[in-house]
Amino acid sequence: MDFADHLWLSCNKLSLLNTCSSKEYLVPDTERKHEPRDVTDRFLPKFDSQGLLTAVVVDATNGDVLMVAFMNREALDATASTGFAHFWSRSRKSLWKKGETSGNLLQVVEILVDCDQDALVIRADPAGPACHTGARSCFYRRLDSDTLVRVRS
Amino acid sequence: MDFADHLWLSCNKLSLLNTCSSKEYLVPDTERKHEPRDVTDRFLPKFDSQGLLTAVVVDATNGDVLMVAFMNREALDATASTGFAHFWSRSRKSLWKKGETSGNLLQVVEILVDCDQDALVIRADPAGPACHTGARSCFYRRLDSDTLVRVRS
Repeated sequence: MDFADHLWLSCNKLSLLNTCSSKEYLVPDTERKHEPRDVTDRFLPKFDSQGLLTAVVVDATNGDVLMVAFMNREALDATASTGFAHFWSRSRKSLWKKGETSGNLLQVVEILVDCDQDALVIRADPAGPACHTGARSCFYRRLDSDTLVRVRS
Repeated sequence: MDFADHLWLSCNKLSLLNTCSSKEYLVPDTERKHEPRDVTDRFLPKFDSQGLLTAVVVDATNGDVLMVAFMNREALDATASTGFAHFWSRSRKSLWKKGETSGNLLQVVEILVDCDQDALVIRADPAGPACHTGARSCFYRRLDSDTLVRVRS
């Protein structure tokens, strides 16, 4: 991470709280500049080449994996400011509030961040089925050689 | 999905079992050609623009999310043929047998496939810590505004 990246990240992590100011942008925390992402206590999301983090949604009640989606900076900020999960739709190329149409919102309970800060676990309370098919979880089939076997309703 | 895609997928899903033959490649199952990925019982992985699926590894014992990584066709085939999780390293651009160096292999118990077949949940028995930091799970920090709080050892 070079100096410009550091400034950018210092600003952007703060934008999660809408507190980014020109002063904060111009005054990096030089003492902690090179602290690696896996040990720091600072949120320094590592977006991929398409500006995305991977987000794994799990049911806060029982830990079941409900769905996998992607978040860009906009989705991350919308999630932080509303408390409901927002994602970036790679196919529609637009911000997507999960459940906005169906009503099956995901109320965020907790967000866990992985070692290199390119993936999140979103622990959430789902208002209904997480899957567009009506299944509680998108992972309702087991791979059996080259066949899929339904294991959940 | 056009006809050529269908032929390719018909072949490639079978290559998971190393049973792909020129005959199978040339004779698509035309009756089921347009069956959507979310209802079919056929494994038709939907690789992204970089040829990858998202793989979420969970501990088969308690369901905890251990790590997130990516699989290309080669990693998928290596996982199927060995029973141990293999991934594609996006940074090193190489096949990666998880735990090959550390010994912390992930023995696959079950693979779940999501509705649109672009993400997998790998239920596995970990031989040791899944994270390169020595943590059991890579998700050992909770996001608290712009700060990360350690929640697991």
